[in-house]
Amino acid sequence: MIKAAIVGGTGYTGGELLRLAAGHPQLSIQAVTSRQAAGTAVTEWFPHLRGHSDLSFVETLPEDGRGMDVVFFATPHGTAMHQVPALLDAGVRVIDLSADFRLRDAEVFAQWYGQPHVAAEWLGEAVYGLPEVAGDALASARLVACPGCYPTAVQLALMPLAQAGHLVDAPIIADCKSGVSGAGRSAKIPLLLAEATENVKAYGVAGHRHNVEIEQEVSRHAGHAADITFTPHLMPMARGIHATVYASFEAPTGMLQALYEAHYAQAPFVDVLPAGSHPETRSVRGTNICRVAVHETRPGRVTVLSVIDNLVKGASGQAIQAMNLMFGLDESAGLALPAALP
Amino acid sequence: MIKAAIVGGTGYTGGELLRLAAGHPQLSIQAVTSRQAAGTAVTEWFPHLRGHSDLSFVETLPEDGRGMDVVFFATPHGTAMHQVPALLDAGVRVIDLSADFRLRDAEVFAQWYGQPHVAAEWLGEAVYGLPEVAGDALASARLVACPGCYPTAVQLALMPLAQAGHLVDAPIIADCKSGVSGAGRSAKIPLLLAEATENVKAYGVAGHRHNVEIEQEVSRHAGHAADITFTPHLMPMARGIHATVYASFEAPTGMLQALYEAHYAQAPFVDVLPAGSHPETRSVRGTNICRVAVHETRPGRVTVLSVIDNLVKGASGQAIQAMNLMFGLDESAGLALPAALP
Amino acid sequence: MIKAAIVGGTGYTGGELLRLAAGHPQLSIQAVTSRQAAGTAVTEWFPHLRGHSDLSFVETLPEDGRGMDVVFFATPHGTAMHQVPALLDAGVRVIDLSADFRLRDAEVFAQWYGQPHVAAEWLGEAVYGLPEVAGDALASARLVACPGCYPTAVQLALMPLAQAGHLVDAPIIADCKSGVSGAGRSAKIPLLLAEATENVKAYGVAGHRHNVEIEQEVSRHAGHAADITFTPHLMPMARGIHATVYASFEAPTGMLQALYEAHYAQAPFVDVLPAGSHPETRSVRGTNICRVAVHETRPGRVTVLSVIDNLVKGASGQAIQAMNLMFGLDESAGLALPAALP
Amino acid sequence: MIKAAIVGGTGYTGGELLRLAAGHPQLSIQAVTSRQAAGTAVTEWFPHLRGHSDLSFVETLPEDGRGMDVVFFATPHGTAMHQVPALLDAGVRVIDLSADFRLRDAEVFAQWYGQPHVAAEWLGEAVYGLPEVAGDALASARLVACPGCYPTAVQLALMPLAQAGHLVDAPIIADCKSGVSGAGRSAKIPLLLAEATENVKAYGVAGHRHNVEIEQEVSRHAGHAADITFTPHLMPMARGIHATVYASFEAPTGMLQALYEAHYAQAPFVDVLPAGSHPETRSVRGTNICRVAVHETRPGRVTVLSVIDNLVKGASGQAIQAMNLMFGLDESAGLALPAALP
Repeated sequence: MIKAAIVGGTGYTGGELLRLAAGHPQLSIQAVTSRQAAGTAVTEWFPHLRGHSDLSFVETLPEDGRGMDVVFFATPHGTAMHQVPALLDAGVRVIDLSADFRLRDAEVFAQWYGQPHVAAEWLGEAVYGLPEVAGDALASARLVACPGCYPTAVQLALMPLAQAGHLVDAPIIADCKSGVSGAGRSAKIPLLLAEATENVKAYGVAGHRHNVEIEQEVSRHAGHAADITFTPHLMPMARGIHATVYASFEAPTGMLQALYEAHYAQAPFVDVLPAGSHPETRSVRGTNICRVAVHETRPGRVTVLSVIDNLVKGASGQAIQAMNLMFGLDESAGLALPAALP
Repeated sequence: MIKAAIVGGTGYTGGELLRLAAGHPQLSIQAVTSRQAAGTAVTEWFPHLRGHSDLSFVETLPEDGRGMDVVFFATPHGTAMHQVPALLDAGVRVIDLSADFRLRDAEVFAQWYGQPHVAAEWLGEAVYGLPEVAGDALASARLVACPGCYPTAVQLALMPLAQAGHLVDAPIIADCKSGVSGAGRSAKIPLLLAEATENVKAYGVAGHRHNVEIEQEVSRHAGHAADITFTPHLMPMARGIHATVYASFEAPTGMLQALYEAHYAQAPFVDVLPAGSHPETRSVRGTNICRVAVHETRPGRVTVLSVIDNLVKGASGQAIQAMNLMFGLDESAGLALPAALP
Repeated sequence: MIKAAIVGGTGYTGGELLRLAAGHPQLSIQAVTSRQAAGTAVTEWFPHLRGHSDLSFVETLPEDGRGMDVVFFATPHGTAMHQVPALLDAGVRVIDLSADFRLRDAEVFAQWYGQPHVAAEWLGEAVYGLPEVAGDALASARLVACPGCYPTAVQLALMPLAQAGHLVDAPIIADCKSGVSGAGRSAKIPLLLAEATENVKAYGVAGHRHNVEIEQEVSRHAGHAADITFTPHLMPMARGIHATVYASFEAPTGMLQALYEAHYAQAPFVDVLPAGSHPETRSVRGTNICRVAVHETRPGRVTVLSVIDNLVKGASGQAIQAMNLMFGLDESAGLALPAALP
Repeated sequence: MIKAAIVGGTGYTGGELLRLAAGHPQLSIQAVTSRQAAGTAVTEWFPHLRGHSDLSFVETLPEDGRGMDVVFFATPHGTAMHQVPALLDAGVRVIDLSADFRLRDAEVFAQWYGQPHVAAEWLGEAVYGLPEVAGDALASARLVACPGCYPTAVQLALMPLAQAGHLVDAPIIADCKSGVSGAGRSAKIPLLLAEATENVKAYGVAGHRHNVEIEQEVSRHAGHAADITFTPHLMPMARGIHATVYASFEAPTGMLQALYEAHYAQAPFVDVLPAGSHPETRSVRGTNICRVAVHETRPGRVTVLSVIDNLVKGASGQAIQAMNLMFGLDESAGLALPAALP
């Protein structure tokens, strides 16, 4: 049984870690921290977990994470980097769901997250935790930086092209649609049901933190600096991301379907749909699955559709998938069940 | 042209007053106050009003409301009672959308609203502004207390029985369903789309401020102390109230349909549906209409279905309807257009 | 491994049986029938089950259900009664999710379902499958009639009072709110998103099939003819039922909380909330849990709030819970996981 | 008073024509046809119009439209072309909301709409009714082909660039998001609330009728064959279109904001937002407004955000705007009111 703690457990990703742990045969959450909720039962914040967790929130973990095999950070950006080094030094492995260790360059981090990086010496050690790309590197990882939700959907759409060298050095558009839970469990007027229902809007068109993360990773695998225009949109729903990715490729017409199927043949959580399909976000709701469809729309141009649950494959599920690989478990442990529809 | 000001204009009822004023031929909003938004354009808070309002929020009105014919209070409870006396003394008429002057008894107010009433001497002067009941009293009213949203829907369902003396002194159930905008434009986690969508819950089952308001008014017209159990529920939608009211009556079987039709024959904003109907909240969305259906379900027992838009007939529309009557205008001025469906 | 077939598998309850079976350690679905979809893969109708089912729909089962331990009927009302007798004669056990065997009186069935009952001789044999009430009777049951979704929510709210003899013979109100999936996966205009979103309406106020079912069962346990006014309402959401039940009781003030807690202490799927609570439908979404809260609102009067997922505890989950008990499995097998929130 | 008839009045665009006519000072709807609903009151199909229309549906109009000044076709594609010639011959003007006269080339129509065009001789006469582009041509038009909803949003986003000659001959992406009412009031399973809520999906990625319409019109004004990849997506909401358009331009950096503002300075229904804005679909709900924001994201590249109500500016409102211009009325007559928010 893997003993784990969650730092920052009152938000949506914390709640999803707890939910998924309830169905995981080898994961035991031993502690959950929250400054604001310390002393109250986890089920006061998550009534749906009544009967599945008898923990109460604690103020903090011991600095060295005593007794834990792994600590998940489900904190806002800028928190994990302060606590991670001590844990690593104490031999506790860390899976960070925040952005603190996603970017390789501390200055780029400082620019986009508005604060200097205080643990830059660990950036090189961090494994970017997209399991479909990271593969074996996770087995020995001490520190895993889980990808952002949008970057997960977009990278899974582009990696078969990028890694096969078929991605042409031309502008790529990643037009993404997300449910509002992607903005977190924060009391802000634009996230109210009365404001966000029956409404669609773009945001961050001038620039978004996830754009630099996407370009960093795609460039690394494409072999050239990827030029990606990423536009996020807010959808009137709670969960789900739909990425619509427009790219140019160099390969014989009609071969992309087979390329994608082969690329993901061994990936338990990427489901390449039959040619001509349109994936639906609800089909992955609550699951760690990414469904992908590939459409060659014109010679040399492709539209890839990619859907995930932003809180699962885009956050907590991916974190557990990474943990499974870090600890030599079945990659799908605790993540195998289908979505509930409707 | 009636010159009006709005106190407290950044919330939903303030916004609806501005919207409805844009379509009103004889109402000119001259000033809108907001402490937090003072100095910013109204359209920054209400982008849908671009092209319809060039006002900016001001900090406060002059104490005597100089130059105004009428002042609308769209403030949280407990604000209007501090400012209303000076306005009335200066000859400015007041329409209060908050609860400050709804209850006749200052002690009951203090008990339910958690603060002493500072203008109790005006409670007797206030006209309870349900136009279908208040009738001519509004023409000369200086101070109008607009009913709560739930009380509007429930009273319109019960008044034909109560006023005709058919309401039996037996327990009444008012099971009410409301969209989340009824809770105001306030940044609270339970009102987030991610929390409130795909969800139904009751609240305030142990007691709700609107229960005492409903009992006060129904009792006044029924001729006995009405025993009403009111249960509000939150619906996964922005607007609309559906009241399902269960009562006992004494009258020949089958006569209620005709009673209701006759009762509301002259009421431009109450639409009694044909026998056997089920009104839909969306059919009144954005309008000042209340749709009512009467079902005699068993001998001597009736279920009345009543739908309104909580922000219009339940607040700002009703306020303008009252204003029309106060100033001798056509009761329907500025309120005549139908809902948009779907 | 229990071998099971599903008759009528393209609807929501069929889909949920398949989903829940995917997570059940001892249940293997061997065949799914559908006349309209025969020959097509189950996953064409349920893309969320890709990777979890490789069945294709078949036209019909062999008449004697050869090789099956149990057959689930997820068919419209009036279908099961034609096929059930042959299955039972062949020794196959049957769990009927439709209404065919819920009512004890064939004439009442004929009146409410508009067709004569063709297997009335089996009505006495059928066990009404509300496990919290039926208890041991399920172990030996050959034919189980699963309760309707509304009756499940209402009965679980009332049974502690009824079975303890505390239910007063006075009118009861069961005001119920349901997501639209309760109306099935049928192509009807009023169920379109564009018609049903941002809308609440009642239906069937004059009389609904579930009213007679509720009265039949509550009367049986209360010891007198229960007088229940049941009003269903359509909510703008896919799943979930919220029953708000108003009843009168005879018992010392303040004892109901303890009564309910004791009554359901051994029921794995009924969660009595702490005093003063308001359950949320989303907290049971996708699960077999019923959450109940008891409010003594006035002396001798109680409001019970009860929430279920109409497709799980109100249909397919309850069917599997019954199956577990019929076959001597752990009552919770395959039904243990929590809801996903948000 | 303009006398008008509507052919095909039970759908959403028919309903919106009736709603908007209720607020139009110079438009009187004299007849509404529907084969399926002939003989029933308009308000049975549109309860929200109770009190605003006492018409009943008729089977058909007289072939020559006797007594009408104008006939609106709110029919499925392929109907208007059969009836329009006789009306035009009789001197009745026609505004067609369907696709029958949108494409200039009868063969392209046949290819995309799966039927030969039976009134191809009128294609040259038809004015493509995007008033912001058509301008004076509408004044004398006898036959107006209203643009599709997606093409309206996309063209209003691109026309300032195209008409100024700044649009570079490079691939353009039009990623569009629509509410489900765009699919009409048709009883289809994928449009059910239970299927479409909490869900986002693309459709028609391989090719969509609106793509050819968009390319036809943009090419005409750009002076070169526009290469536009159009991808429609279904949103979990009833109304609204958000077009996100990615294009390349040739012009000095930073001048597009001024270009757009100047281009639409005289257009009463296009609102160019301040630099840096993100328009929301709800801000135009129920109105004829298009809100546009222009973002120069990289040198020579622009992302234009454009929102409309698909049933108003994308259909019935645009039709009335065209009618106003055809009959010399104020362009905004009957279309002046703001959206209701929330």
